[in-house]
Amino acid sequence: MSFNSFGRVFRFSTWGESHGPALGAVVDGCPPGLELGEDDIQPFLDARKPGQSKFTTQRKEPDQVRILSGVFEGKTTGTPISLMIENVDQRSKDYSEVAKAYRPGHADYAYDQKYGFRDYRGGGRSSARETAARVAAAAIARKVIPEVTVRAWVAEIGGDPINPDNFDAEEIGRNPFFCPDAEAALRWEKLVDGARKDGSSLGAIIACQAEGVPAGWGAPVYAKLDSEIAAAMMTINATKGVEIGDGFGAARLRGEENADAMRPGEDGPAFLANHSGGTAGGISTGQPVFCRVAFKPTSSILTPVQTISREGDATEISTKGRHDPCVGIRGTPVVEAMMALVLADQKLLHRAQCG
Amino acid sequence: MSFNSFGRVFRFSTWGESHGPALGAVVDGCPPGLELGEDDIQPFLDARKPGQSKFTTQRKEPDQVRILSGVFEGKTTGTPISLMIENVDQRSKDYSEVAKAYRPGHADYAYDQKYGFRDYRGGGRSSARETAARVAAAAIARKVIPEVTVRAWVAEIGGDPINPDNFDAEEIGRNPFFCPDAEAALRWEKLVDGARKDGSSLGAIIACQAEGVPAGWGAPVYAKLDSEIAAAMMTINATKGVEIGDGFGAARLRGEENADAMRPGEDGPAFLANHSGGTAGGISTGQPVFCRVAFKPTSSILTPVQTISREGDATEISTKGRHDPCVGIRGTPVVEAMMALVLADQKLLHRAQCG
Amino acid sequence: MSFNSFGRVFRFSTWGESHGPALGAVVDGCPPGLELGEDDIQPFLDARKPGQSKFTTQRKEPDQVRILSGVFEGKTTGTPISLMIENVDQRSKDYSEVAKAYRPGHADYAYDQKYGFRDYRGGGRSSARETAARVAAAAIARKVIPEVTVRAWVAEIGGDPINPDNFDAEEIGRNPFFCPDAEAALRWEKLVDGARKDGSSLGAIIACQAEGVPAGWGAPVYAKLDSEIAAAMMTINATKGVEIGDGFGAARLRGEENADAMRPGEDGPAFLANHSGGTAGGISTGQPVFCRVAFKPTSSILTPVQTISREGDATEISTKGRHDPCVGIRGTPVVEAMMALVLADQKLLHRAQCG
Amino acid sequence: MSFNSFGRVFRFSTWGESHGPALGAVVDGCPPGLELGEDDIQPFLDARKPGQSKFTTQRKEPDQVRILSGVFEGKTTGTPISLMIENVDQRSKDYSEVAKAYRPGHADYAYDQKYGFRDYRGGGRSSARETAARVAAAAIARKVIPEVTVRAWVAEIGGDPINPDNFDAEEIGRNPFFCPDAEAALRWEKLVDGARKDGSSLGAIIACQAEGVPAGWGAPVYAKLDSEIAAAMMTINATKGVEIGDGFGAARLRGEENADAMRPGEDGPAFLANHSGGTAGGISTGQPVFCRVAFKPTSSILTPVQTISREGDATEISTKGRHDPCVGIRGTPVVEAMMALVLADQKLLHRAQCG
Repeated sequence: MSFNSFGRVFRFSTWGESHGPALGAVVDGCPPGLELGEDDIQPFLDARKPGQSKFTTQRKEPDQVRILSGVFEGKTTGTPISLMIENVDQRSKDYSEVAKAYRPGHADYAYDQKYGFRDYRGGGRSSARETAARVAAAAIARKVIPEVTVRAWVAEIGGDPINPDNFDAEEIGRNPFFCPDAEAALRWEKLVDGARKDGSSLGAIIACQAEGVPAGWGAPVYAKLDSEIAAAMMTINATKGVEIGDGFGAARLRGEENADAMRPGEDGPAFLANHSGGTAGGISTGQPVFCRVAFKPTSSILTPVQTISREGDATEISTKGRHDPCVGIRGTPVVEAMMALVLADQKLLHRAQCG
Repeated sequence: MSFNSFGRVFRFSTWGESHGPALGAVVDGCPPGLELGEDDIQPFLDARKPGQSKFTTQRKEPDQVRILSGVFEGKTTGTPISLMIENVDQRSKDYSEVAKAYRPGHADYAYDQKYGFRDYRGGGRSSARETAARVAAAAIARKVIPEVTVRAWVAEIGGDPINPDNFDAEEIGRNPFFCPDAEAALRWEKLVDGARKDGSSLGAIIACQAEGVPAGWGAPVYAKLDSEIAAAMMTINATKGVEIGDGFGAARLRGEENADAMRPGEDGPAFLANHSGGTAGGISTGQPVFCRVAFKPTSSILTPVQTISREGDATEISTKGRHDPCVGIRGTPVVEAMMALVLADQKLLHRAQCG
Repeated sequence: MSFNSFGRVFRFSTWGESHGPALGAVVDGCPPGLELGEDDIQPFLDARKPGQSKFTTQRKEPDQVRILSGVFEGKTTGTPISLMIENVDQRSKDYSEVAKAYRPGHADYAYDQKYGFRDYRGGGRSSARETAARVAAAAIARKVIPEVTVRAWVAEIGGDPINPDNFDAEEIGRNPFFCPDAEAALRWEKLVDGARKDGSSLGAIIACQAEGVPAGWGAPVYAKLDSEIAAAMMTINATKGVEIGDGFGAARLRGEENADAMRPGEDGPAFLANHSGGTAGGISTGQPVFCRVAFKPTSSILTPVQTISREGDATEISTKGRHDPCVGIRGTPVVEAMMALVLADQKLLHRAQCG
Repeated sequence: MSFNSFGRVFRFSTWGESHGPALGAVVDGCPPGLELGEDDIQPFLDARKPGQSKFTTQRKEPDQVRILSGVFEGKTTGTPISLMIENVDQRSKDYSEVAKAYRPGHADYAYDQKYGFRDYRGGGRSSARETAARVAAAAIARKVIPEVTVRAWVAEIGGDPINPDNFDAEEIGRNPFFCPDAEAALRWEKLVDGARKDGSSLGAIIACQAEGVPAGWGAPVYAKLDSEIAAAMMTINATKGVEIGDGFGAARLRGEENADAMRPGEDGPAFLANHSGGTAGGISTGQPVFCRVAFKPTSSILTPVQTISREGDATEISTKGRHDPCVGIRGTPVVEAMMALVLADQKLLHRAQCG
């Protein structure tokens, strides 16, 4: 029921604003006895951290995580794990313009309409800084599903997709775009830098695959694995679409093309294709679980946009400051995190019902 | 937490299999005092009903709804509303083939892996008959949001989209495809009939728009309106993707193109575009809420597909019987239903927090 | 979140009014593969059924249960199990008096204040008939916890308690009071019959014990086993108090008296007492789980009581009809049912987290 | 679903152990625009704080609260409010004895059975320090229900009850026992001090009354106000029983005695008694909501008690250190807190459904 929690059995809640003293997550329902230290979490925060290249925001946040509860002698105790990250780089800035006028594409107007007012400093709760808390929580989720390997990458920026033939998982960590295609990474340097110099921004498509998910996770109707993943991904800032397997492409296939035919394999059944993205009837099939997520272009751009003030008068706004020219890039570790969080929850949920 | 429930404050649970005696829904949290009778529900079930043209399955189900509780003297009492639909056309059929081998694209294999066995008659719980229960529940949701008009239509079949210039809402009810473009409807007759004759099937994209949603519904993070809609749509059988507003298209726009600029309007702010699909930061903006949903082609096809038996031996399967050549078509009222159900819940949830 | 659902992983929802066509329950999250038929449920409904002696209401309800979904070839499938009981004995009666004035002790006034109106026929949703649905659901819960034996009995009526020295579990089924003390049962015949003849009613205390609960079910804080049991019992009509173990009596013990000392036993630890009622820190200890529940006297009495009309005028009301002189008696199978439902849920929840 | 969260719409989660760096609560679903500062919370923590008299533990904890999120310019924003309290007085102590043997009445054995191991320092998560987090959260709940005044007091210690004729609300804050009866407070000084000197402990009964609750909060069946209150109270450490209104006493009344007769009043209906404790059919009636909660005697006592070691060997344990001779006393502000938290949630839940 919570507005700021996600999950059913393995459940986390996040709190914190962009310009408050700190942000964090509380992870509840974690199995006991898992080895866990801050060192297990920090690398994932580091991967998400801003300011690592000119292609992301220059805000400098150390994003140092502290575990405040739920771990004893290096192991999870089964009680809530409280994670906290202090906000450090709250550059003293003039927010008067943002306070007065609504930035199109941002939550400004919607928040004012819902709550009557808003914390306008850096977007407050709507800031993508919230995603640091999820990334931290997901490091714990990964411990719950050691049998699963989750990997996300950028599959397209500004309409320029990777070439699947060039896919090299090793490449993902070698460039500032989480790009598995070295050639595309080179093209994107120019593309993203150009958008930045233009005071504009670009959208992106992030792909995510989880290998090692056994058959049987998920549930037939309102807890379909597809639905859980879609819900999870669409809670990430700037996402506007999600697809499982071939997704919208499947709507253009014929029945016989879309069928993932089965053959006897060495180790149980072998599927001859994975159009479905690893689910059937909402339940995992044992194939890799695969999804793609659409990120809109960053709404904070230097190019002025027409808008209105809080009083309703016509004006225009240009968002200065340290913004990502393509938020999708830094969304990659967050997509990966949400996949891990969903799968950990589904594993425990399946265990509850089916033993 | 329930596997078969959806919603937070306005919440419904469904039950029933394709070949059991009946199926139904229990709607909980409905406001009291709303006028409600079976006549308010039946028309929506009739719109979803199979067997109305040669373009849908020839199974004949009257889908007559009964209200078993929660209404007194023609008004909702605030207590749970139990809806029941009896299964009538359970044609005695030989399911031995389905019992023995896994139909690719269906839940057969996944269910067996999860539960150890399955009700193989007509798909059991994974049958699209379940959606009748949601459509019935949604008729009540509509009563909760009289200020909102929800309308869904087929926007594309087998890769052939409607022409937006031809959009005529009146047309939707005039053809068997829920198609707002009379020309496309003509083309689709041939397309769908061709697929049927080939023993094949087609995918589709369904669009849905809700007008009249005030600004302020939804919530910033894990109850984002976008996330709730995505979750809802991805619980429908055969869906593989969902997008809000421009969705994947937004990933190809530049920041200034994607911004929904604002101007002072006669009646509050006027937006100059709706790329966002009526949400910002997970909260409604007062613009129409718009989404699109991808349906894969029907998995039940006459064309034989390679598969394995329960024992793991190689075989092939051809699904005979009365199947929709394009399940997306009959998914249209279901998409509309889920949108109404999400919005009713969000209205009440917003009222809880913000009065 | 649902108002009419209970449980976390093993979860049930009930629906139905006293004078509607039927009532029922939907049980969600049940493990697959459990043998289940209507014959497994009916005996529990029969035990709860009214009209079996002059000490309970003379309303005659066959309370015949039907399983409408979730079972295939005699086994639970893991999908929702829909249970329905038709209302048969809806004696056409004049409810005009109840419609006009508020019966003290009943929900009449509170419902009108909450919902603006109410279904006044037989109490509508506030009728104890709702408990038939739980008793049916609990028959399934028992299948989930075959290692546990749950037994409830009446421990006191109208201030007259059983003598613990006379406790004989076999006796519970031999008298119309679920009384384990044959002597008390004899005394209660006069006591209850006297109250009935006086147009009055009596309260009761029901005890319930679950044997075979292993150590480890429950959770430290907001899912304490004690809290779950208390919540469950206090949802039963006419309950006003609940205690675990010595309960209020423990508040009068000294620390060393209340400590359940431990010794090495043949089969793990042996406890030298069970003041705690089988829980410590909210988690089961392996001792029998024990609680007691207070039922107020039936509010429907022939003796006239001062009240007001819907219009606010002074009047008095005397509730004619077929009422239990002591609702606690028929509450006994319901207390037993709720204990089984809580324990089944906790077993699965424990399995989710701790494997 | 969470193990460490409570509430439906106004929902809080707590985290933290006795000997970790800090503990806290995250409050979600709070209405926006409420004035809130640390000064609004601190007085309630101060009332609960240990070490204020010789009748409570001598542990010295400043229990200074920090608001880390959800408040902007002195007002709640509608986003999660994170509260943190640092643990200061973690006296370096030898816990080897507690680590080795199980303290009867404590969660030690149950935790080990559930989780395989436990944080034995000061009870870890089972420590009553957790209740500081609730008391802090409840200060926010009070802001949500300004129309309600909640007040708790000690009604009985070690079997010695207050005299209702001496009840003086002003007296509650004047003695170290939250006792509204000055005479009883004098008696309890000797009683409690005697138990302390004996190395023993005493149980207590806490009463709580909420005035100003309008008719209509709560719900008919599984969200009965009685059930919510019972669940809430039974999550507090050391509670073993709860009753609403006359509770177990009602089980000894006759129907006509127990009926809260109604008369026309100046300001709506007037009730002639409040045996029911302000609820009927699970919904508030407009009368004061009243409950009583039983606390067992403190389990940590100097008097040695027989027990077993982790290895299963016979031993005995005597709990040295700074313990409350009667935990019920310091439970008083916690009971008050839980009542406020339940009522705030129910207010919002009622508003969701009934507007």
